[in-house]
Amino acid sequence: MERNGLADADSRGGGRPLRVKDVAARAGVSVGTVSNVLNGRKTVAPDYVDRVMQAVKELGFLPNDAARTLRAGSSRVIGFVIAEQDNPVYTDVVRGAEEEAEHSGGIVLIGHSRRKHDREAFYLGAFAAQRARGVVIQPYGDVAAELGRLRSQGTPTVVLDAGRSGWGGSSISMDGEEGGRLAARHLVEVGRRRLAFVGGPLDFLAVEQRVRGARAGAEGVVPIEAFEIPDMTIEEGHGVGSQIALRPAGERPDGIFAGNDLVALGLLNAFTQAGIRVPDDISIVGYDDIGLAATAWVPLTSIRQPREETGAAAVRIIDEERREDLPARHLQLRPELVIRASSWPGRSAANS
Amino acid sequence: MERNGLADADSRGGGRPLRVKDVAARAGVSVGTVSNVLNGRKTVAPDYVDRVMQAVKELGFLPNDAARTLRAGSSRVIGFVIAEQDNPVYTDVVRGAEEEAEHSGGIVLIGHSRRKHDREAFYLGAFAAQRARGVVIQPYGDVAAELGRLRSQGTPTVVLDAGRSGWGGSSISMDGEEGGRLAARHLVEVGRRRLAFVGGPLDFLAVEQRVRGARAGAEGVVPIEAFEIPDMTIEEGHGVGSQIALRPAGERPDGIFAGNDLVALGLLNAFTQAGIRVPDDISIVGYDDIGLAATAWVPLTSIRQPREETGAAAVRIIDEERREDLPARHLQLRPELVIRASSWPGRSAANS
Repeated sequence: MERNGLADADSRGGGRPLRVKDVAARAGVSVGTVSNVLNGRKTVAPDYVDRVMQAVKELGFLPNDAARTLRAGSSRVIGFVIAEQDNPVYTDVVRGAEEEAEHSGGIVLIGHSRRKHDREAFYLGAFAAQRARGVVIQPYGDVAAELGRLRSQGTPTVVLDAGRSGWGGSSISMDGEEGGRLAARHLVEVGRRRLAFVGGPLDFLAVEQRVRGARAGAEGVVPIEAFEIPDMTIEEGHGVGSQIALRPAGERPDGIFAGNDLVALGLLNAFTQAGIRVPDDISIVGYDDIGLAATAWVPLTSIRQPREETGAAAVRIIDEERREDLPARHLQLRPELVIRASSWPGRSAANS
Repeated sequence: MERNGLADADSRGGGRPLRVKDVAARAGVSVGTVSNVLNGRKTVAPDYVDRVMQAVKELGFLPNDAARTLRAGSSRVIGFVIAEQDNPVYTDVVRGAEEEAEHSGGIVLIGHSRRKHDREAFYLGAFAAQRARGVVIQPYGDVAAELGRLRSQGTPTVVLDAGRSGWGGSSISMDGEEGGRLAARHLVEVGRRRLAFVGGPLDFLAVEQRVRGARAGAEGVVPIEAFEIPDMTIEEGHGVGSQIALRPAGERPDGIFAGNDLVALGLLNAFTQAGIRVPDDISIVGYDDIGLAATAWVPLTSIRQPREETGAAAVRIIDEERREDLPARHLQLRPELVIRASSWPGRSAANS
């Protein structure tokens, strides 16, 4: 039969857990010496360190936070589960969460599910086991049951997603349709009449919302040609850009809405290599406004999502739910258009 | 007096920990129903789920891994503490660790110390409390004591650093001097005679090693002008590139070794905007060979460090130390030169 390490203390009578004085007795040193060793103070002679550590091992004593966490029912840890490790957007979301967490004594631990459901389920279980203060997740699979279990033990959960509902708990979503509308309307306003969207997969909710918004933004003015790619990377953007460059000039789109900034960078690279000028010949609008957008050799117009703010808001929701037992909340953050050189012909210094 | 949740089971006599059947009795349902609820199976009527969860709460039962971890003395978790969150190199190191860990049933949890010692100390303590299977760290402050404590409880540690020693445990380091030597020698070999290094801070060990190697690689042939920057970002590289572009053509360096690929990209952007051709007018060599190096509009020559391999090797060391109680090991991985268009005038298709 399985027995846990703490309950082993029962064999010494009284049912009390192992304490520092048990370790001291076993090691034949004072309680103060054990405390000094366990707290890493450097004043203890090596021989005593060895004796204490040997006693710790033999008794199975846990000189650490695990038992304390079990008693307190909660830890400083805020768990953060990310599906897409390579998306620089999430680097900023995490940074926002980390900075906000520090204000209230929390600290963020991160798991990358890498779009595998068993991994995200494991991380959620590990954070439940740690009695995490709260959990934030960009979900991949169906984690409704795992999130429900966290909440049933009093751990607030915040889902970051593109609008799916039914998770329970709090959520923060982006208005992707508004972002697509802003991008397409801007391209129409600067005079573009042959629009294209480059992104995918087209049935991904976040992508589908951006395309739907773009079609609405260009409605009645111009149609939008869609180039679907399996992943929104620089390489895939470069591939589509090279294809477009092979067309006769009159058959190329003159305004491109890229599904994200990496795709926009790939398009810009391909056009630059082919001698097609951005924005004189083709305007490009990206999405996310990652750091690389502003620093591209032709700075990219993009749709900015409030990234640090998303992470910070998630942590604030957790803190508020814990403090005041508030009901779940659902934030929708609005994107904004950031105009730079890549979209506006005749307005760019770098390309005039 | 503090008491831990598991020892509370003593009040029901026999000193045994809480079990599923205690929850079932309290909720007035069968043991099977409790198990179904705790395991998230969807066959249970909502009313029963509520009753079970209420009983779980009232009893303080932990339906999770914490108690199991305390019993087993070890978890699946491999802790990974990263100092520099924004460096894309570490994204790949972590990916390598995650993939290797999956082979042996491990899973990686990540903490960003963000160059704060109290944060890295907290993460190491949390991983100790979790009885992590092993810990990998890119250290910022002095964590020798925290690492020693992990090893004393039987948790292997692997330090990723640029050559500092004295941490104890295993380590993996990069030969930065060799990388610098490869970069400078290549620039000399393609005919460059006015070399520059752009990077910093110059007293950072990793930077200092690369500069020392570069001076050795160019020794007796050409001197190297150093442009120091406080952070190795695209923006800082762009700033130095803009300064260099303002010089008369005859006073510019003709071969630049950038401290990392982000700096190299910033230089490339600034030169492209100023009409200076890469590599015809100036050759550029970056460092790290991040994904953005190959996808730049002029693909970057770079020094490749084995990133995924570093993460995978760290996990293998942990697994081997645990399995066979092996002594600590110290790997030094060698960098290699990856030649692309940015460095070799007359050899580039994109710029000919």
